[in-house]
Amino acid sequence: MLVTALLVAGVAGTQGVSAQEKVDLDMTGRIRAEAFNRSQVMATLNHLTDEIGPRLTNSPSMAEANRWTRSKFSEWGLSNVHDEAVDDIGRGWSFNDAGVEMLSPRVMPLHALPKAWTPGTTGAVEGEAIYAKLQNKGDLEKWKGKLKGKVLFTDELRPYKPNEKSDFSRHDHDSLEELLSYPLPTERTRDASMLAQYLERMKFGPELNQFLIDEGVVATMSISSWNDGIVRVMGGGSRKAGESVGVPALVMMAEHYNTVMRALDRKETVKLRVNVDARFLDDANRPGYNTIAEIPGTGPNKNEVVMLGAHMDSWHTGSGANDNGAGVAVMMEAVRILKAVGARPNRTIRVALWTGEEQGLIGSQAYVAKHFAAYPEPTDPAQKALPAAFRTNKGKLVKTGDYEKITAYFNLDNGSGKIRGIYAQENLAIAPIFEDWLKPWNDVGATIVTQRNTGSTDHVSFDRVGIPGFQFVQDQLDYFSHVHHTHLDVQDHAVADDLKQASAIVASFVYNAAQRPSKLPRKMLVED
Amino acid sequence: MLVTALLVAGVAGTQGVSAQEKVDLDMTGRIRAEAFNRSQVMATLNHLTDEIGPRLTNSPSMAEANRWTRSKFSEWGLSNVHDEAVDDIGRGWSFNDAGVEMLSPRVMPLHALPKAWTPGTTGAVEGEAIYAKLQNKGDLEKWKGKLKGKVLFTDELRPYKPNEKSDFSRHDHDSLEELLSYPLPTERTRDASMLAQYLERMKFGPELNQFLIDEGVVATMSISSWNDGIVRVMGGGSRKAGESVGVPALVMMAEHYNTVMRALDRKETVKLRVNVDARFLDDANRPGYNTIAEIPGTGPNKNEVVMLGAHMDSWHTGSGANDNGAGVAVMMEAVRILKAVGARPNRTIRVALWTGEEQGLIGSQAYVAKHFAAYPEPTDPAQKALPAAFRTNKGKLVKTGDYEKITAYFNLDNGSGKIRGIYAQENLAIAPIFEDWLKPWNDVGATIVTQRNTGSTDHVSFDRVGIPGFQFVQDQLDYFSHVHHTHLDVQDHAVADDLKQASAIVASFVYNAAQRPSKLPRKMLVED
Repeated sequence: MLVTALLVAGVAGTQGVSAQEKVDLDMTGRIRAEAFNRSQVMATLNHLTDEIGPRLTNSPSMAEANRWTRSKFSEWGLSNVHDEAVDDIGRGWSFNDAGVEMLSPRVMPLHALPKAWTPGTTGAVEGEAIYAKLQNKGDLEKWKGKLKGKVLFTDELRPYKPNEKSDFSRHDHDSLEELLSYPLPTERTRDASMLAQYLERMKFGPELNQFLIDEGVVATMSISSWNDGIVRVMGGGSRKAGESVGVPALVMMAEHYNTVMRALDRKETVKLRVNVDARFLDDANRPGYNTIAEIPGTGPNKNEVVMLGAHMDSWHTGSGANDNGAGVAVMMEAVRILKAVGARPNRTIRVALWTGEEQGLIGSQAYVAKHFAAYPEPTDPAQKALPAAFRTNKGKLVKTGDYEKITAYFNLDNGSGKIRGIYAQENLAIAPIFEDWLKPWNDVGATIVTQRNTGSTDHVSFDRVGIPGFQFVQDQLDYFSHVHHTHLDVQDHAVADDLKQASAIVASFVYNAAQRPSKLPRKMLVED
Repeated sequence: MLVTALLVAGVAGTQGVSAQEKVDLDMTGRIRAEAFNRSQVMATLNHLTDEIGPRLTNSPSMAEANRWTRSKFSEWGLSNVHDEAVDDIGRGWSFNDAGVEMLSPRVMPLHALPKAWTPGTTGAVEGEAIYAKLQNKGDLEKWKGKLKGKVLFTDELRPYKPNEKSDFSRHDHDSLEELLSYPLPTERTRDASMLAQYLERMKFGPELNQFLIDEGVVATMSISSWNDGIVRVMGGGSRKAGESVGVPALVMMAEHYNTVMRALDRKETVKLRVNVDARFLDDANRPGYNTIAEIPGTGPNKNEVVMLGAHMDSWHTGSGANDNGAGVAVMMEAVRILKAVGARPNRTIRVALWTGEEQGLIGSQAYVAKHFAAYPEPTDPAQKALPAAFRTNKGKLVKTGDYEKITAYFNLDNGSGKIRGIYAQENLAIAPIFEDWLKPWNDVGATIVTQRNTGSTDHVSFDRVGIPGFQFVQDQLDYFSHVHHTHLDVQDHAVADDLKQASAIVASFVYNAAQRPSKLPRKMLVED
């Protein structure tokens, strides 16, 4: 195990002097045996993704996932199993089928799928394709009165660029070493300009939607952001009750999108037939639900809690298997393992399956705000328009009585790749602890503790209020080539052995956090 | 150019003593300038694949391709432009659209496309999915009376296997070197057993088709042979008039196919809706057509001919851009270049755009049989059942008066990758000639002459009767990962610079063959 030894040694050199962490190797061995030899993680993933299917926030299948995961937690003997409402998360939406056909200049099926929270068509409707970029008010004025009965192609043709690397990758010595280096923070102006663009889009969106309706546009088509027939689809329209949802909006596979664009470039008349069977459940902002369950603590710190979680909501065109059925299945398996091996933790272990992550960490942020801490509501309208988890921390943090009772939160949300280490999120004091916790897992490939921050998922909701919140380093597999937010995100692309390994490591980290005599060290909280 | 130098040196060592070939470098330079600076190859490819679309043998769009390519040849000043009928090639078929939807246990669209020469549905039809392998008479007896109203899933679930190599590849020094080595022929029993299986399938096919109709099967589904959402579809049913065409038969993307199979494994009731808009043009075996054109010879050997060609027919779900719009566009561009640079060849140059290649080299084989040579019709029924080009050579070759007038045939049919050399097809005497012809192209990557045989396309029709017939070595690109017989075989995946290079090299090879004082050496013909 040369690679492993080298990497651990490399890290150990940075950790300074620290007392060795006590790791219960007997319990670790039992966790390992249960995880590797009696795994149920694929059965869990299978039910969640194949049977229940994709779990768009506030969709009927997300509700079914809340119900089913509660039933599994109860079956496994967890306590305090319940859902917690997340208020006003938006409208429910679901879709059954979608078909687009080119009728002229020649007849062929075009592969396209609808954006979530966009309306269906009333049966099959026809329209003429037109290229129209509608990005600001000037564009709307330019096109006003010219779009009736049209199917709008809103992106430019994108020339095909072959990927000369493998679509499937695992970390190797070099890539792990690279992750161990900490890049100094560079200018943040890019974030600011991205924020400004985001707010601009947020403001322009409803106006554009109403314009499309007023103009009598049949549907809009965007180009999939990936090639090779992969349809990558997120949301459109609006999930907020009372807001205009615009017209049917679909994402088309790049090769077909380009085929239409080339025909338009040749000045051909392109007629399309569009049929989208999709619907909003009603016109009210409904609560969404996080599913919560516990293994009660039995020791002197039983009033304290260690949390683990993953988001259960997904996008709608695959079955949300790698984003993030994998994370949910691993977190469920971790608590199942702990029950199966008879763990009686000192602190209470609490698992959370979040809703609304894909809409801006809504479920976890609301949970943290209610149970632990929140910054005051901003007065700046630009900040107000952002999902709370993405706002700039400002003002004095308002803490609940439980704020000091949580020791850590562990998250998994980078596909089904095995765990190769953990992001310490600039918590220097925690590195030597995690290094000791990782040692029993070095031989299955989990070796590094990096000071790097990682973002984009629910540990951010904890981290930003000063609660130690972590996401693991995972092998990438084909997460960013095939499955992330695509129609290919189905169970086939999840790797069983990787999920077993991840379940074992998460179970042991959570157990170690529950048993540790003192809570895990926290970073300094900067309050303004 | 170390690689090039090494490789050419490597080949030169095997060639023994030979007179240097005379290459007209002035003409070569003119070809190069026309090909690289004033290329029309992408415009040709665009019209053929984007505007005309896929060109299934005997489909309306294949007929349009015959018409349009004739008009281009005439526009470019070629002579003797005409179509030649290939008798009784089968029925015409075309398809407009296809949709498959899972209705239960949950609702989702399934991506599937119809096999060519299978019937459409009468609007949307519904049926229950069932897994039934029907490979022999025993299977039919086992399932008799149990399949009414069912949608048959006829393949096993295939676990996903990630591809750890790049989907896109070019030759490098090592892979070219490997191609230069000649593997000694190994046992041919595998061919014999494959042949037996093929004949078995040919015999069982019509029986199976009739069984499916008699049983009242709604449709059959096969798993796509590639993963990652790629739908790889060829033919089914029957293209022969009077034969049973069975029921609607589709190929489904692997991930969706597996999703259904897992539901069946869980004993769930899977209901599907299938809607295929496809039709046979009529119920008669119609001729197909090869399109032929010439640049007449002007020298002492003007009654002799050098041929170049590529198959114009394609499968139906992409637009046949890489298989083999690319080859057609290159061959057309090669003759356009020769006209543009004012070539007045000694021998006549004749270009052929074949039909029926995908059904067994039917167009080129018929052409060769009519114009040059054919083996007698076999008496063995097993041999009779094979497409003529795949039969074992037996008997005395019957030659026409033109047999000695053709010097060579050059073919291109391995996607849009640039030319890296040429297969000499075990014609040892031709290697030093081709090596000399390749020298002006070494600097654009075409370097090797390998003694290896390559098969599977139309040069075989010439080679098997002893006419020097060649196929070029090409960079693979994503031919065998994305586009070969798939719905992704569209113009986007063709690489313009590669096609320009190939057009130039083909033009120069054809010109060299036309100018060479004597005909190219032939291999010994073994007649039985």
